[in-house]
Amino acid sequence: MKRVLNLEPQEIVRLEPQAVVLLDQRRLPEAVSYLECVSAAEVAEAIRAMAVRGAPAIGIAAAYGYALAAARGEDLGAAAAVLLASRPTAVNLPWALAEMRQGEQAPAALAERARALHDEEVERCRRMAAHAAGLLEPGTRALTHCNAGALATGGVGTALGAIREGFERGLVTQVLVDETRPLLQGARLTAWELERGGVPYSVVADAAAGSLIARGEVDVVLTGADRVAANGDTANKIGTYTVAVLAREHKIPFYVAAPLSTIDLATPDGDHIPIEERDRREITHLGSSRLTPEGAHIRNPAFDITPHRYITGIITERGIFAAPYHESLKRALETAVPAP
Amino acid sequence: MKRVLNLEPQEIVRLEPQAVVLLDQRRLPEAVSYLECVSAAEVAEAIRAMAVRGAPAIGIAAAYGYALAAARGEDLGAAAAVLLASRPTAVNLPWALAEMRQGEQAPAALAERARALHDEEVERCRRMAAHAAGLLEPGTRALTHCNAGALATGGVGTALGAIREGFERGLVTQVLVDETRPLLQGARLTAWELERGGVPYSVVADAAAGSLIARGEVDVVLTGADRVAANGDTANKIGTYTVAVLAREHKIPFYVAAPLSTIDLATPDGDHIPIEERDRREITHLGSSRLTPEGAHIRNPAFDITPHRYITGIITERGIFAAPYHESLKRALETAVPAP
Repeated sequence: MKRVLNLEPQEIVRLEPQAVVLLDQRRLPEAVSYLECVSAAEVAEAIRAMAVRGAPAIGIAAAYGYALAAARGEDLGAAAAVLLASRPTAVNLPWALAEMRQGEQAPAALAERARALHDEEVERCRRMAAHAAGLLEPGTRALTHCNAGALATGGVGTALGAIREGFERGLVTQVLVDETRPLLQGARLTAWELERGGVPYSVVADAAAGSLIARGEVDVVLTGADRVAANGDTANKIGTYTVAVLAREHKIPFYVAAPLSTIDLATPDGDHIPIEERDRREITHLGSSRLTPEGAHIRNPAFDITPHRYITGIITERGIFAAPYHESLKRALETAVPAP
Repeated sequence: MKRVLNLEPQEIVRLEPQAVVLLDQRRLPEAVSYLECVSAAEVAEAIRAMAVRGAPAIGIAAAYGYALAAARGEDLGAAAAVLLASRPTAVNLPWALAEMRQGEQAPAALAERARALHDEEVERCRRMAAHAAGLLEPGTRALTHCNAGALATGGVGTALGAIREGFERGLVTQVLVDETRPLLQGARLTAWELERGGVPYSVVADAAAGSLIARGEVDVVLTGADRVAANGDTANKIGTYTVAVLAREHKIPFYVAAPLSTIDLATPDGDHIPIEERDRREITHLGSSRLTPEGAHIRNPAFDITPHRYITGIITERGIFAAPYHESLKRALETAVPAP
């Protein structure tokens, strides 16, 4: 088994007595630096500004932010509201806050509960990766979009955890990484994790993936998810739908890896998932460089919907679920125990 | 008819007594500045470095470079060789040089011939745009990839010329512009031309086009081409194939606009078109900012192949040709007269 350097869960996000401390993902790969958030509002701002991102990771950050608010004597209703409003698409955020809002609200109990949620996420990732590895054959060349790794989960990752597990088992030989404009989570974060872990990879422009798939250079596509609706329609980083269409066009399996906390049976289908439109500056500028003409009009949806018919299977901590998703996902959640 | 500000052909590229003068497209939209190339080798370097780009425009630049070499008393065989080697994919480059190599090689005759090639390209663009406009209905929302406009042709453009003509006739109401990583010709050049021309547009990340097509926001896709093979397979800027797959998935017409000089009957199909792989730095850096981890592996093909079965029609200066392309393109070239 090959050795892979892992990020420890507490390196991504942790609760300290007077702060939530986050690895500032906006500064990677240039700098590994930490952001100390000393209130629920500061944690919410870090989520909004994407210092921490990835559906599971923002759920954990919000849980820690809520526990921090309790430790500081903040109004807990207000803390929950500001955290909930930070980003709209990932369902892990309301899910984690709902978990925190139940039961005892004493600071020590909330700190313990937030850490337990984080521990469970780590364990979920491990299980997802083990299930996913069973799908992979020796010599697999995988493609992934955005970052669904340690940075996105606080564990080993969802889609990237599966890829790393596949690499450790000697099954995955090459990873194609979409750079993932506009915020370049693939180029900046996924490449950083794979470089650190010694996994062979190549970064490509998002627009190049189709060409490389057409040349027969990809065997499987694995991505994460921000929300899976009851019928299997999946919201994920903008560009995921395009990769799914290309995968089907070339008869390559397209898997979504997501913990059960990302499945939202209350949302019937993709049309009901709110899609965040982010700041035009993500497109018009890179750092201080202006890329577009003065006054350029911009569209910048942060997520897209991949209809369930493009999805070969959804990999969860309780196994892999396939169509008809309306039945399989309901069964998956019914049989789920609270802690994995 | 709405008024559209045009770039004059000589603003893009022109021959002066001792230089070829090019609008330096690398510096747009921040600066409108000109590059003076005083030898065929400097023109070749400007093409290689993409100070001038776009299949028709690099053909014209090479013709002017060859005429400049004659005016300066350079070895014409060596001049043709260095110009030919500057970029491999667009067939307009060898086509224009072959036109220049025929007949009288006196400096004045070559200058006149190069200017005539440029004039013909301008006229070809005008005719292509008129043919294309016949395809468009009122209220059309068009999507284009890369830049196939004035900057790419020295005329009004191929795909973007068609879009502008459609706008002037009151048919095109909105243009979706793929930013076109890695060099951002959509965000930088197409947006600049449309902004200057008063045409309503929005720039989107390449990965967002699929989502907006899926939402029903695009009625037609129009792109240029760098080389069209005898069977209709088309090489164009990386990402074009992906847009073509998305267009077919959503039953939207996908048109290629290209002068007959871009059709290469000597190349049987897309597998025989050489695809340029460009510098990794286009992906790893933007300006002085490093985007990827130190030592990141990169794949950076500059073009991809769109198989003919995805192409609704090829718009040329002699009309619109459809499948079976093997027959229609041969007929198009047989009936073509040397000057349009």
